[in-house]
Amino acid sequence: MSVDLLVEKIKEKSNPSVAGLDPKLEYVPEYIVKKCFNEYGKNLKGASEAILEFNKGLIDALYDVVPAIKPQSAFYEMYGIDGEMALHETIKYAKSKGLYIILDVKRNDIGSTAEAYSKAYLGQVDIGGMEVSPFDVDCVTVNPYLGTDGIAPFVDDCIKYDKSIFALVKTSNPSSGELQDLISGDKHIYEQVAECVNKWNGETIGKSGYGAVGAVVGATYPEQAKVLRQIMKQSYFLVPGYGAQGGGAMGVKPCFNDDGLGAIVNSSRGIMCAYKKGDWKEEEFAEAARCEALRMKDDINSVL
Amino acid sequence: MSVDLLVEKIKEKSNPSVAGLDPKLEYVPEYIVKKCFNEYGKNLKGASEAILEFNKGLIDALYDVVPAIKPQSAFYEMYGIDGEMALHETIKYAKSKGLYIILDVKRNDIGSTAEAYSKAYLGQVDIGGMEVSPFDVDCVTVNPYLGTDGIAPFVDDCIKYDKSIFALVKTSNPSSGELQDLISGDKHIYEQVAECVNKWNGETIGKSGYGAVGAVVGATYPEQAKVLRQIMKQSYFLVPGYGAQGGGAMGVKPCFNDDGLGAIVNSSRGIMCAYKKGDWKEEEFAEAARCEALRMKDDINSVL
Repeated sequence: MSVDLLVEKIKEKSNPSVAGLDPKLEYVPEYIVKKCFNEYGKNLKGASEAILEFNKGLIDALYDVVPAIKPQSAFYEMYGIDGEMALHETIKYAKSKGLYIILDVKRNDIGSTAEAYSKAYLGQVDIGGMEVSPFDVDCVTVNPYLGTDGIAPFVDDCIKYDKSIFALVKTSNPSSGELQDLISGDKHIYEQVAECVNKWNGETIGKSGYGAVGAVVGATYPEQAKVLRQIMKQSYFLVPGYGAQGGGAMGVKPCFNDDGLGAIVNSSRGIMCAYKKGDWKEEEFAEAARCEALRMKDDINSVL
Repeated sequence: MSVDLLVEKIKEKSNPSVAGLDPKLEYVPEYIVKKCFNEYGKNLKGASEAILEFNKGLIDALYDVVPAIKPQSAFYEMYGIDGEMALHETIKYAKSKGLYIILDVKRNDIGSTAEAYSKAYLGQVDIGGMEVSPFDVDCVTVNPYLGTDGIAPFVDDCIKYDKSIFALVKTSNPSSGELQDLISGDKHIYEQVAECVNKWNGETIGKSGYGAVGAVVGATYPEQAKVLRQIMKQSYFLVPGYGAQGGGAMGVKPCFNDDGLGAIVNSSRGIMCAYKKGDWKEEEFAEAARCEALRMKDDINSVL
């Protein structure tokens, strides 16, 4: 399972964190935006080229610090086809630097459609007898609202193509509780979903002791994380909400197992916009990102 | 609200159904696939051009019969950037024929990310002071698992840009009940979500009496549809599961209000692959699709 590869990379870099690449145009240093507008026009293409250049600079500064990146698809789709091309190029560039790619797409649908999504991102599509991998990332996020038959095609491809997924369990946003915290029987919905994750994961345990089906568990809800850690002992947790969303190192601690493994913590804005805090110049955005990534690594390791 | 426009188009064509454009390559007539492979290569580009030609033929045959089309994003993402370009061109072509576009993307995320998705599909994105509409469809599907703050940005854009959304409530697939049918308090989860939809919809009621926030309610669960129709009186229902998934006209009836409005029924495979049934030649795929769309229209109208 590619979760073994993730664990390997986390150990190698002693860093259980992932850099989120969610490049709103306002995050990109102005000198890059201006240059790309001049070269490609003040349009979706110009914006997307600016994002790609920003991403490449960040990846160059981060690839020996973090084990993984997590591009958020929304911030590329927002710039149309050009944005999607920038995402595609970002993925290729990050792979060439040896980074593990978690593509945050939160896809979900009925079985036959989930199969198409899975082929797009994890698997291969048949083109007149030839097998082609359209995006070929290591891992995607998925939404469990449709139940097992919306997840099974992804799990099948995890096994077939050595990939992983993270299913939403308890998200980091303020209103996550409206549905996820409802109680059914004697359990919260997030616990019921966690039990499904645990079941889906069961057939996929790799040599690291973890399986291909992980869980998204927000850093903003540490009490719930403690409970979820017990239900899904062999699932990796993808933990958003550290930093800009308000969660700190103590908040993410319950997401980890006692061996210091079991979770990977995301920071997007905190790393990408590090240059906007303190005395950095715009041109130093990559160095600032690296410093923040190193600070975050130490911060998280200090509580493990 | 653009739901008013949808209601207008449904009345104009006396047809409460939508043609789903979910073009797996195996649905496309072989002569089109061969031609496009010859012209563009046996690759993602060739496959995507074949899909686009198929879609245009279908749209030409359907635009005066159906009020709307519903492309399923998965079947375009499956063919990479080329597939996404085919989706973009399909949307543009269908709009030029006056069709209402429901893009089935089931997006979902925390507030700031949901905002990016909403800008991508319903709203506009700021490019150095210029407002650009990346995809500009009439309507998208969304997943409610993250609660209000994952939906609010879409609702805001519905109001600002005259658009609509359908939120998943009770999906058509066999395992939809695993999570959606759990009981919390004295209500099923799908009822709890329906009450959220009703609340989100409340501020958006248009002159048709319906609001911008509709619900996905599968034709395969008519008993649940009856209950949901009572909770969300002013929400339009998008009804998958008719035809190939097993739901018939009697199954979709409970999704409608007494005035014969309130629901739009989707058929994808049934219409796209109509030429594979009976005595049609491949070259008659568009005519076969038109016949099936007309049959479906009569079938549904017969129970209203």
